Amino acid sequence: MNENQHIVSAYDRDLEGVQALIVKMGGLVETAIADCSKALELRDEDLAQQVRAGDKAIDGLLEQINEETARVIALRAPTASDLRVVLSVMKMSNNLERIGDYAKNIAKRAGVLLQMTPIDGSAGAVRRMTREVELMLKDALDAYIQRDAELAAVVIQRDKEVDQMYNALFREFLTFMMEDPRNITACMHLHFIAKNIERMGDHVTALAEQVIYVSTGKLPEEDRPKADSTPYETHGDPVAGDN
Amino acid sequence: MNENQHIVSAYDRDLEGVQALIVKMGGLVETAIADCSKALELRDEDLAQQVRAGDKAIDGLLEQINEETARVIALRAPTASDLRVVLSVMKMSNNLERIGDYAKNIAKRAGVLLQMTPIDGSAGAVRRMTREVELMLKDALDAYIQRDAELAAVVIQRDKEVDQMYNALFREFLTFMMEDPRNITACMHLHFIAKNIERMGDHVTALAEQVIYVSTGKLPEEDRPKADSTPYETHGDPVAGDN
Repeated sequence: MNENQHIVSAYDRDLEGVQALIVKMGGLVETAIADCSKALELRDEDLAQQVRAGDKAIDGLLEQINEETARVIALRAPTASDLRVVLSVMKMSNNLERIGDYAKNIAKRAGVLLQMTPIDGSAGAVRRMTREVELMLKDALDAYIQRDAELAAVVIQRDKEVDQMYNALFREFLTFMMEDPRNITACMHLHFIAKNIERMGDHVTALAEQVIYVSTGKLPEEDRPKADSTPYETHGDPVAGDN
Repeated sequence: MNENQHIVSAYDRDLEGVQALIVKMGGLVETAIADCSKALELRDEDLAQQVRAGDKAIDGLLEQINEETARVIALRAPTASDLRVVLSVMKMSNNLERIGDYAKNIAKRAGVLLQMTPIDGSAGAVRRMTREVELMLKDALDAYIQRDAELAAVVIQRDKEVDQMYNALFREFLTFMMEDPRNITACMHLHFIAKNIERMGDHVTALAEQVIYVSTGKLPEEDRPKADSTPYETHGDPVAGDN
C-alpha cells in the first residue's frame, strides 16, 4: 500500500465515521419519539423520566458530530460530493437534536398531565400522530443510508398528513376547552404536545431534503407541502406546517 | 504585491463577505421582530402582510450564506480560527432563519387575531416581551461584530427574563380562558405567539453562544438559564426555556 492509498482510506473512514454517528443519533431519536408517546398514553412517569434523561445522550452525539465534522473539514478539506456529505451531516444532526428536544418536552408535559383528569381520546390521537412521524424518520434514515432520493421525496409528501392530523387535534382541543373550562389546562399541554409533534414532522422533512441534497447534489424545489395556505380561517391552526 | 499576499487578501475578503451577510441577515430579522409585534399591537394587517412577505428575503440570505460558506470551505480549506468563523456563521444563519420564521408565524396569527375581540392588556405584554428579545438580538449582533464575549454572556443571562415573562403570560392567558370561553380561541393564538417569542429568545441565546465560541474558541459551559427547573408545577408552563 502506498502513501497515497493510505491517506485516501483514512479519509474514507472519517466520512464513514461521521455518517455512522448520524445513523446512531437517528436511532436514539426514533426511540425517544416512540417512548415519549408511550409514556403519555400509559401515563408512565418512569418512562417519561427516561426520555427526559436520555436527551443528554442525543445532545452528546450532536457535540461529537460537531467536533468530528470540524475536524474532517480542517484535516481533509473535502470538496464536491464529500463536502456535501459533511455539510449534510452537520445539518441533519441539528434537525435530530431539535426532534430530541421536542420528545423531551413532550415527556415533561406527560409528567404534568399525569396529575390531571385524562382527556378522552387524546392519547390515541397523539399516538397516531407520533407514530406517523416516527415512521417518517425511520424512512428518512433508511433513505439516507441507501442514498434513496425517491424515498426521501415520499417522506416529504407525508408531512402533509401530519399537518392535517395536527389541525384536526387543534379543533378538537378547542372544543374540549369550550365545553368545560376544567379541561383548559390539560388541553393547553396536549395542544403544545400536538404542536411539538407537528414540528418534529417539519424537521424530518428538512432531514429528508438533506438526503435528496446528498444523493443528487441538489436541494428539492420549494414545493414542500405546508398547511398554511388558509391563513385566515380561525378553526384550524393557521400556521400548521410552518416550523 | 506578490502572489502569496494576493491569495491571503482574497481569502480575507471571503471571510469578511460571509460575516457581512450574517450582519445583514441579523438586521432583517431585527426588523421582522419589531414589525410583527407592532402589527399585532396596532392590528395592522398591512404590516403583518409585509412581515410575512419579508421572510423570503431572510430565507434567501440563508441560502446565500449556505452557498458562500460551502464555497469558502471547498476553496480555502480554513483551519483554526478561520474555520471557527465559517462554522459559526453557518450555525448563526440557521438561528436567524428560525427567528425569522417565528416572526412570520406571529404575523400570521396577528392576521387571524384581527377578526377576534382583543384580549385586554395582551398586546402590551407581548410587545414588552418582543422588545426584550429584539434588544437581546441587537446586543448579540453587536457582540459578534466587536468579538465581545462578555456582552454575549450578558445576552445569555437575559434570556431568563424572557422565560419569566412567558410564564407570567401563560398563567394570564389560562385565567382569561377560564373566565370566559369566548376568549379561548384568541388566547390560544396569543399563547402560541408568546411561546414563539420565548423560542426566539432561545435562538438568540444559541447565537450568543456562537459569539463566545468565535471570540474565545470555546463554547460556554452548560449553565444556560432554563426556566424548566420546576417541571411539576402546573400553573406556569413547565417547559419554558426549552426550545
